[in-house]
Amino acid sequence: VQAATDDGAPTLGSAGERAALQRIFPRLPAAEHALLGPGDDAAIVAAPDGRVVISTDLLVHGPDFRRAWSSPYDLGWKAAATNLADIAAMGAVPTALVVALAAPASTPLADLEALADGLREGCAALAPGVGVVGGDLSASPTLTVAVTVFGDLEEREAVLRSGGRPGDVLAIAGSLGRAAAGLALLFERAVDEHGEPDARRMPALRSKHAALVEAQLAPRPAIAAGRLAALAGATAMLDVSDGLLLDAGRIAEASGVRIDLDAGALAAEAAALAEEAPTLADRALALVLGGGEDHGLLAAFPPGAVPHGYRVLGRLVDGAGVTVGGRDSGAVVPGWDSFEAWDGRTG
Amino acid sequence: VQAATDDGAPTLGSAGERAALQRIFPRLPAAEHALLGPGDDAAIVAAPDGRVVISTDLLVHGPDFRRAWSSPYDLGWKAAATNLADIAAMGAVPTALVVALAAPASTPLADLEALADGLREGCAALAPGVGVVGGDLSASPTLTVAVTVFGDLEEREAVLRSGGRPGDVLAIAGSLGRAAAGLALLFERAVDEHGEPDARRMPALRSKHAALVEAQLAPRPAIAAGRLAALAGATAMLDVSDGLLLDAGRIAEASGVRIDLDAGALAAEAAALAEEAPTLADRALALVLGGGEDHGLLAAFPPGAVPHGYRVLGRLVDGAGVTVGGRDSGAVVPGWDSFEAWDGRTG
Repeated sequence: VQAATDDGAPTLGSAGERAALQRIFPRLPAAEHALLGPGDDAAIVAAPDGRVVISTDLLVHGPDFRRAWSSPYDLGWKAAATNLADIAAMGAVPTALVVALAAPASTPLADLEALADGLREGCAALAPGVGVVGGDLSASPTLTVAVTVFGDLEEREAVLRSGGRPGDVLAIAGSLGRAAAGLALLFERAVDEHGEPDARRMPALRSKHAALVEAQLAPRPAIAAGRLAALAGATAMLDVSDGLLLDAGRIAEASGVRIDLDAGALAAEAAALAEEAPTLADRALALVLGGGEDHGLLAAFPPGAVPHGYRVLGRLVDGAGVTVGGRDSGAVVPGWDSFEAWDGRTG
Repeated sequence: VQAATDDGAPTLGSAGERAALQRIFPRLPAAEHALLGPGDDAAIVAAPDGRVVISTDLLVHGPDFRRAWSSPYDLGWKAAATNLADIAAMGAVPTALVVALAAPASTPLADLEALADGLREGCAALAPGVGVVGGDLSASPTLTVAVTVFGDLEEREAVLRSGGRPGDVLAIAGSLGRAAAGLALLFERAVDEHGEPDARRMPALRSKHAALVEAQLAPRPAIAAGRLAALAGATAMLDVSDGLLLDAGRIAEASGVRIDLDAGALAAEAAALAEEAPTLADRALALVLGGGEDHGLLAAFPPGAVPHGYRVLGRLVDGAGVTVGGRDSGAVVPGWDSFEAWDGRTG
């Protein structure tokens, strides 16, 4: 059994699983769609039209976050935000989450409370009415947050990646490159002299670049825009988690089309990002094309059907792959692969 | 990037996430209830009566399994079995799973394939028609399997823990104490001279005590008995994950009753276990009362309604707590709490 922290505050190990759950549960949001919440062998969630949309996602200490940069509150928020975006990207409305948490015995209970607060406030800000209906808590050397999220299609067909047609317009709701810009700032300015993540440098960075750092650590995807896209007749959609070029390529491949991005629209996106982060101006276009984790909703619409809140980026044409102004998109910016890209550090 | 194993076999690190998923997906079972399987932002599962039953569970290397004892195939099987039992314990029929896997870059792809095989064959044996509709894969220093499972109530009310009434009969489907007996054998006979789990001793133990070792490493809960209990009018039910005394106490507390276990029935359970494992005969009753992880279904029924496959263990009466033959159940056998009980070793 693990002792309390040096200052006597209770930890998961000193309090035990049951006491920890009693501290966490009251902070978690209730789900409007819950027919039975936590406390029995399973939860029951309403699936009004006889179907349930489901996605699951892991956040692992090291490849997915650094403790020196992400507060427990940020982690809870990001776990909610990234999962809610997967439901929105189907044209569905999120209804509920389950959260399985593995954490070292030395984790202060206050950190778990803050994580629950981040989950609650992330849901309240991005998808009001969504709540946590169940979970699990286990000891582990590696802090890991596994979230599974549920959604309702409200009698509509799901918007898949595969329905795009030549002639459709490609548009995005939400930011492009801002989360990656925030990550670049963290790696440049929130590290010590050996390049290791350093929490002591966070207050200065957060005060100077609050919005971009937030975009990386506690993103705000346009969740409600998923339903809007479906209502507007979107033919294909996904959330941009691995970068615009790579994710546009996924729509192109699944739909059997070429996606031609408009050079002027990309330049405007890059200019807006450069204005927000002048020191990254020389990389702004690369961040817009290759930066992931904003979880913006990228969708194809019939001409004239692009709804409010979406910015046109290009169009779907005959062919395959992704081009810019009709030309090869050039240097491919690879997507994030935690097995290839993670350097093994945990910060 | 992690190199392949010494003998050149590909690992998660050498192959990358996408190649690994291409190896795993074909081995996963398809779900009869899947309206849309893996490959888009989310899956869609049928929820025919407008409700979905949901449970989530973690298996973490160290507190929940030792690699020296559990093969990857066992892990996949156990992840399926324990989760399916939570759905059965609601009186529901399991329909689908999502699986989030965090694993070291050094993990051979062959281990992931074996884990998928265990998931597939566990589902096929325990709940035919259940399949995997989605998942996630991430790098992590700690092998972690997070499963979320879904079920259908087939228009029935769920069987909660709280519906038991004085006069009901308590009965179990599935084994009691066999998984704990298997664990005791592992700790006694599959360790080296320092008490560390030792894979080299597994073949001898598996050949001599196959059934009990299997009960621990790849349990076979009576999944179909959950639906049978609901059809028979069960008033309360759960799956025994933390031991009979503790889990009976949960029904007693939730239902506002006392549960009086029958001393003769317990003696018969202990005698059967002692016959299977003579070296554990002196601990057989303690294993029956306190041993978890068999995931048997413990249910309360109106008198005369106990269905085929259930063995009567006692009855529900006025009062609180759990007694044996009307007397205090004596030394409390505490349940498993990974923060209190895990010794920090990973084997």
